[in-house]
Amino acid sequence: MMFNKILIANRGEIALRVHRACRELGIKTVAVHSTADADAMHVRMADEAICIGPPSATDSYLNVPNIISAAELTQADAIHPGYGFLSENARFAEIVEEHNIVWIGPTPDHIRRMGDKIEAKRTAAILGLPLVPGSDGPVETTEEAVAVADRIGYPVLVKAASGGGGRGMKVIPDGESAAALIAAAKSEAKAAFGDDTVYIEKYLSEPRHIEFQVFGDGKGGAIHLGERDCSLQRRHQKMLEEAPSPALSPAERAAMGEVVRRAVAKLEYRGAGTMEFLYEDGKFYFIEMNTRLQVEHPVTEAITGIDLVREQIRIAAGLPLSVTQEQIRFDGHAIECRINAEDPATFAPSPGRVTDYHAPGGLHVRVDSALYDGYRIPPYYDSLISKLIVFGATRDDAIARLRRALEEYVIHGPKTTIPLHQALIEDPEFQAGEYSIKWLERWLAARAAAN
Amino acid sequence: MMFNKILIANRGEIALRVHRACRELGIKTVAVHSTADADAMHVRMADEAICIGPPSATDSYLNVPNIISAAELTQADAIHPGYGFLSENARFAEIVEEHNIVWIGPTPDHIRRMGDKIEAKRTAAILGLPLVPGSDGPVETTEEAVAVADRIGYPVLVKAASGGGGRGMKVIPDGESAAALIAAAKSEAKAAFGDDTVYIEKYLSEPRHIEFQVFGDGKGGAIHLGERDCSLQRRHQKMLEEAPSPALSPAERAAMGEVVRRAVAKLEYRGAGTMEFLYEDGKFYFIEMNTRLQVEHPVTEAITGIDLVREQIRIAAGLPLSVTQEQIRFDGHAIECRINAEDPATFAPSPGRVTDYHAPGGLHVRVDSALYDGYRIPPYYDSLISKLIVFGATRDDAIARLRRALEEYVIHGPKTTIPLHQALIEDPEFQAGEYSIKWLERWLAARAAAN
Repeated sequence: MMFNKILIANRGEIALRVHRACRELGIKTVAVHSTADADAMHVRMADEAICIGPPSATDSYLNVPNIISAAELTQADAIHPGYGFLSENARFAEIVEEHNIVWIGPTPDHIRRMGDKIEAKRTAAILGLPLVPGSDGPVETTEEAVAVADRIGYPVLVKAASGGGGRGMKVIPDGESAAALIAAAKSEAKAAFGDDTVYIEKYLSEPRHIEFQVFGDGKGGAIHLGERDCSLQRRHQKMLEEAPSPALSPAERAAMGEVVRRAVAKLEYRGAGTMEFLYEDGKFYFIEMNTRLQVEHPVTEAITGIDLVREQIRIAAGLPLSVTQEQIRFDGHAIECRINAEDPATFAPSPGRVTDYHAPGGLHVRVDSALYDGYRIPPYYDSLISKLIVFGATRDDAIARLRRALEEYVIHGPKTTIPLHQALIEDPEFQAGEYSIKWLERWLAARAAAN
Repeated sequence: MMFNKILIANRGEIALRVHRACRELGIKTVAVHSTADADAMHVRMADEAICIGPPSATDSYLNVPNIISAAELTQADAIHPGYGFLSENARFAEIVEEHNIVWIGPTPDHIRRMGDKIEAKRTAAILGLPLVPGSDGPVETTEEAVAVADRIGYPVLVKAASGGGGRGMKVIPDGESAAALIAAAKSEAKAAFGDDTVYIEKYLSEPRHIEFQVFGDGKGGAIHLGERDCSLQRRHQKMLEEAPSPALSPAERAAMGEVVRRAVAKLEYRGAGTMEFLYEDGKFYFIEMNTRLQVEHPVTEAITGIDLVREQIRIAAGLPLSVTQEQIRFDGHAIECRINAEDPATFAPSPGRVTDYHAPGGLHVRVDSALYDGYRIPPYYDSLISKLIVFGATRDDAIARLRRALEEYVIHGPKTTIPLHQALIEDPEFQAGEYSIKWLERWLAARAAAN
């Protein structure tokens, strides 16, 4: 049975995103907000709004008792956590369920298991997902280490077992130099940490970050919705995402998608999730699983036509997956720009009043933003203020559309990263789709040096 | 070879629409504007802008010499006329071509032929398009008239050949009453006009307005992009359009689409066009052909994924059609609301300053509008200020999305028809897709009576 009312335990664009999905399903919404967000768009749009605390997120958007009280007070049937905040907090999910409120997300057990990095990798291995190959623990002698490196294939990375900060870490390009470099790493490690045991791991020089969107029905039914390429990152923060990945062939997509789908089915996973991988030379290496909706989910919506938030709500309501794997069609190309209220040169946050706001429109342009003219961006939260998503028949089409949409976008008042996106999409390597997870930081450094 | 610069001989949302297509093709744009439109969005967005006259459209947007001068001054390679204004003016198209500027539209000959209603019907008949069956001219005697009516099938309409204003016009429901009603109509006609000859025509009691979007390459290559249902009209002005039509089966669409496609091919038509039909009881009857882009083209873009303005520009540049008929896929359902700056109760125009503006966003919501916060809607032109287009997997999905998008849309200052659309989409007959071209006026009358 579909819900009557959903409490959205989040703010900003994702709260609005979830609200929209609820509205389209005929479900009433409850917004929660800090005192700093009383005028926020998600509060204005919702049927009801409850203040849950002062500006600090710890006291408001992370305030479990107040959020539960708000749900009880408003008689919400279910809670959608969005992303960030409490979305991957297994204990919160448990508390929600203990209060007989439906948790729109995976089981607390799955959240917990995948939230622990070591446990997640162990689970991934059991599920048949490829991991970065390595020594499976510390190795004692140089001979042993060389044997592991030979088995994995070069280049490999040697890392001090007790190390950190890059000390005692070396890239070994080939078998010839292996013994000497491992011996050197070991003596460095001994000198620095008093322990010369080392790990050996496959070295990925220019990997891409490629993640697969998945859904499970909790009973072993599972689908994948293809991949997203999120390699363009600065300090592990994604800046621009696209689907499909410029690096993947349809055959690779189908093959890896099936591996991922089977893993999700075996896990009896429930709801939306993302399996993140590094990808290099045609091979995938599992990094982690996110047990929630991702910021970049709209690019998947654009190429599949499937409303991912609606799908989450349906599954939580006990409905079956709305499509089978065979029914899912991947069509065209989508790109998302994360627009932050930041100085595009320094990345310093730039909160404050929006003195003029005009979103781009027209064919195949989507804007997910809780900004409005006159809105005062509070300084307390994430600086993401808008997601601009474009779709095109081809990647070149999508880039051309993105260029004109960025040009149309008016956000006056705070500084934004729009100029950065405008420069980025003119870069020939970006246009050729040739980038790794290391590319953006190099590009930003070169840009800073040139200015 | 693609154009370097296009002059857009229009204003408002359609000028912006064409500008966007140009930008995405890397083509520079020239805006033309009246003195009343100096601050208009299309002027702000274009690379160059030329004032072509005072507010009155006759002196500006219809001012052929000034528009040609603007094109020559800016060295524009081509002119896109949008819809309305000079878009179906064959003489203008000729003048454009005489100045060695490419006309983005059909040949002047096709515009002229289809612009003449009698000539258009004659052409349609030659092309094999079904017309409303009738007596093919006046009939003299009652016996002759009954014979024609019997052949056409009841109900039929009998109309005074010299008549007008409904006098001497009668609906004949069946063969039994035919002789008596025709005789009565003839004597009424005699009394009123001194002439008792009459026409007989098939009577369509509750037809729908269904139109097919077509493209030709000018050399006999042609495609159709399916139909739009534009039955919801007030005083022959469309208010809400959708694609596909709720009344058509896929088999009917494919069959009629093929009839239309062949007609366009035989005509050796060039560019975008629309074949308009009345539709009743599974049969189509040709009304007219529009030799230009239609206001409601975005619903076709939504269900086919094809950028119609880009297609127009490509064809004008001598490129082939970008898709074959077989490659065109019809997917999902799209609805467009025409939002006018009008009092929703009286339809009196409501120009003036927009004091707050916020367009809806999110998944599958498209806004084509040249409004912005602080913009002053001039009183001189059409009252259409925005087109809101939504897409959904099903018609119900699209309606649900439209509901929430209308709810989000903020246009303060002028009165708008948003409340009318909000009421309309809640009507059970609309929701069931059960409406004819007569439905909206009845609905509006009932609404006016209830208020």
